[in-house]
Amino acid sequence: MFGDMMGMMGKLKETQQKVEATKKRLDTVYIDEKSVDGLLSVSISANRAIKEIKIDDSLLQDKEQLEDYLILTLNKAIENATKVNETELAAVAKEGMPNIPGMDSLFK
Amino acid sequence: MFGDMMGMMGKLKETQQKVEATKKRLDTVYIDEKSVDGLLSVSISANRAIKEIKIDDSLLQDKEQLEDYLILTLNKAIENATKVNETELAAVAKEGMPNIPGMDSLFK
Repeated sequence: MFGDMMGMMGKLKETQQKVEATKKRLDTVYIDEKSVDGLLSVSISANRAIKEIKIDDSLLQDKEQLEDYLILTLNKAIENATKVNETELAAVAKEGMPNIPGMDSLFK
Repeated sequence: MFGDMMGMMGKLKETQQKVEATKKRLDTVYIDEKSVDGLLSVSISANRAIKEIKIDDSLLQDKEQLEDYLILTLNKAIENATKVNETELAAVAKEGMPNIPGMDSLFK
């Protein structure tokens, strides 16, 4: 299991590089989210950087409603971005980790 | 280094529990962020759930400006929440990991 320490070090370094490359790639993966009625739309990267928010004119009439719309839609968008982010990074990290039972749950 | 496998397993399990407990705790840690002029304010948890968005009435006059304000302020808030989140979780995870040089960088 831990027979080849040098090989393991090499693999860890390789994994770090793959993790960095994946993080960079996720900057260009976008997730789109809309309110149920389509009046508010949001685009966010898999690294959770908001790129675009589009508010329909009709939402400007009621500020409280607009604030609620924003919170709901943005939270859905952030959640979905986090899922993509964690799935992608966990796959890379898991691949490069020594096979210790239970360790993979640290990356969830 | 890997002499005591059973001890290591126990420590990993303990770390998983600490990671879960920390994630839960971060739901109740809030980060506040404002636009430079204070017209827009946002409150977000360290787990990146937006709790509150407060828009000043004056921002409703110009939709494009409001959208830009939201993107800027929310991205700052998400970034700060991510910093708190990663710092807290990395501290717990690092504490519980076997001491392999370079491994801690996987948690950054």
